[in-house]
Amino acid sequence: MNRVYNFSAGPSMLPLPVLEKAAAELTGYGDSGMSVMEMSHRSPVFDAIIKNAQAKLRELMDIPANYKVLFLQGGASTQFSAVPLNLIGRTGKADYAVSGQFSSKAFKEAQKMGYDVKCIASSKDTNFDRVPRITRDMISPDASYLHICFNNTIYGTKYDYIPDTGDIPLVADMSSCIISEPVDVSKFGVIYAGAQKNMAPAGLTVVIVRDDLLGYCDPKAPTMLDWKVMAENDSMYNTPPCYPIYIAGLVYEWILGMGGLEAMKECNVKKASILYDYLDSQSYYTAPVQKSSRSIMNVTFVTGDADLDAKFPKEAAKVGLVNLKGHRSVGGMRASIYNAMPIEGVQALIEFMQDFAKANPKA
Amino acid sequence: MNRVYNFSAGPSMLPLPVLEKAAAELTGYGDSGMSVMEMSHRSPVFDAIIKNAQAKLRELMDIPANYKVLFLQGGASTQFSAVPLNLIGRTGKADYAVSGQFSSKAFKEAQKMGYDVKCIASSKDTNFDRVPRITRDMISPDASYLHICFNNTIYGTKYDYIPDTGDIPLVADMSSCIISEPVDVSKFGVIYAGAQKNMAPAGLTVVIVRDDLLGYCDPKAPTMLDWKVMAENDSMYNTPPCYPIYIAGLVYEWILGMGGLEAMKECNVKKASILYDYLDSQSYYTAPVQKSSRSIMNVTFVTGDADLDAKFPKEAAKVGLVNLKGHRSVGGMRASIYNAMPIEGVQALIEFMQDFAKANPKA
Repeated sequence: MNRVYNFSAGPSMLPLPVLEKAAAELTGYGDSGMSVMEMSHRSPVFDAIIKNAQAKLRELMDIPANYKVLFLQGGASTQFSAVPLNLIGRTGKADYAVSGQFSSKAFKEAQKMGYDVKCIASSKDTNFDRVPRITRDMISPDASYLHICFNNTIYGTKYDYIPDTGDIPLVADMSSCIISEPVDVSKFGVIYAGAQKNMAPAGLTVVIVRDDLLGYCDPKAPTMLDWKVMAENDSMYNTPPCYPIYIAGLVYEWILGMGGLEAMKECNVKKASILYDYLDSQSYYTAPVQKSSRSIMNVTFVTGDADLDAKFPKEAAKVGLVNLKGHRSVGGMRASIYNAMPIEGVQALIEFMQDFAKANPKA
Repeated sequence: MNRVYNFSAGPSMLPLPVLEKAAAELTGYGDSGMSVMEMSHRSPVFDAIIKNAQAKLRELMDIPANYKVLFLQGGASTQFSAVPLNLIGRTGKADYAVSGQFSSKAFKEAQKMGYDVKCIASSKDTNFDRVPRITRDMISPDASYLHICFNNTIYGTKYDYIPDTGDIPLVADMSSCIISEPVDVSKFGVIYAGAQKNMAPAGLTVVIVRDDLLGYCDPKAPTMLDWKVMAENDSMYNTPPCYPIYIAGLVYEWILGMGGLEAMKECNVKKASILYDYLDSQSYYTAPVQKSSRSIMNVTFVTGDADLDAKFPKEAAKVGLVNLKGHRSVGGMRASIYNAMPIEGVQALIEFMQDFAKANPKA
């Protein structure tokens, strides 16, 4: 069967060599006589799998020794609750920057839970076509943390800078950009990400937390949301999402084999550049995001005509370019071009965009 | 490669035909051109997968129409928190029966969270070798619910009756016995289960909840733990654990193809019976569980000699009978013989037990 180019925002494409390896060992892993799906999480064979995945992620991201790597469940949405539960006890207050739907959800979740949180920066006034500019003086001196969403999947924006928060821990949702390029982990207190975009199938959430930030969890919080408990139990307070962890390990190895995050960045920048260059070179499609905030993972564009916007993803799907419809809250088109999307997929998309523009002249 | 007989308490064996089907379509599902792991959870193709899994589970368990079926993350341990968060608002109080380690954890979690909960029955006095006998008069008239663990994986016990709780909702952790035999769902307010024993790889948690019990969630609870939110969003408030849901659907179809839960019960009772019959017929091994409370999923036994108990699982593993070591908290041996364990595995275990007894006479 021909595989399509899948531009889904997540879950999304995984590297074909990873899928092929997983398929080959699905009914029996190594000489274990069983599938990874069937392994006791307490067995030596699975212990090696989870330890390898953690080690490979540490290597890939060059994670400093004073950070814990947790493999959890529940998605970024669960971390929207876990972040205040684990951190706000430090001072009782926290700051949020709102740069799109998910950062807004994170902020509202903390409010809903009754916490004293403040939105110190937002790009809502320009319909999230950029990330906000955050400067030191904007941050509350008594904030337990500043929360940001580093790449905004729906709008196609990404922070082109790491906000300087001084001593205040910076907490970043990196669900849609983690391991797409190198990032200085030491600039963050906490990085978290749902795995289903760049790392693994849905069901795994990675939390990278500086160890001095552990131990402030609300004692009445659900134990499963307490990072310290999970850290002390090596992410196995209960049964972890074993199979997604195994696939994540294979993905990390695949990236290391490709040359690591520097190589991945080069490839991702190239893919995004040819698409943005095309968008900038013509007038049929418009890229709504301000240039300085452009994401290299999610590229949004519109025709300016609702009927053509509706027709585009349908026609594209017919030639094997699927899931190009923009998020239901913003419309238009979105091409998510994560690590596993080959440049050939982006080239095919650009060719299709040219053909579509020719075949569907605007009135 | 030869597959072993895997007696792990969970994650545990999955039906080989399910694994083979999953392997065959791992890189491309149907004519979708992608793996199930790569599918947008909002796509029609995945929507059919999750709806099919829900429908098949409803069919298998004959779940009444006034119950919602939720596919969540976080394992039973997360439900230990979710149960009081969702239900205790009804009256402010709840009852628990403690029949082993996990029911104790559920009780302690509710206490830790600051709730007014009471242990109304326990079998701790006989080291959990039985389930407690719960009668109507023991239950607090103002309890929001009574929580029980229906099958106790570690000890190898199972409720041989459904406690009569009158109007008070009965909440049961069925992680290690769900879909092993028919159960009258209408006798329960809530049934929940981690999937990694009888249903799917780890990372999926099934919650079956009577719809009149929705809507009592603590407004300050993490949104991801609010059953009503998850029900209103068809388990897709955020990205669900798509791949385990797909495998669960295949497992449900496999069981339906085998004749459903009546056939599964017949097979499971037969497997457990030959093992218990053997245990009762000799004196080398002892089954510590009282006969009326014996689980048909987890069969525990000891030699009465710590060295022999340590030697047994090691020797068994050499002949392809793996994960027979009892839980670290109780020692001895445990054979978990879930749906996917063929009777040949149990027969091979009994033969090995006979050989081991002969080869290792007691002093």
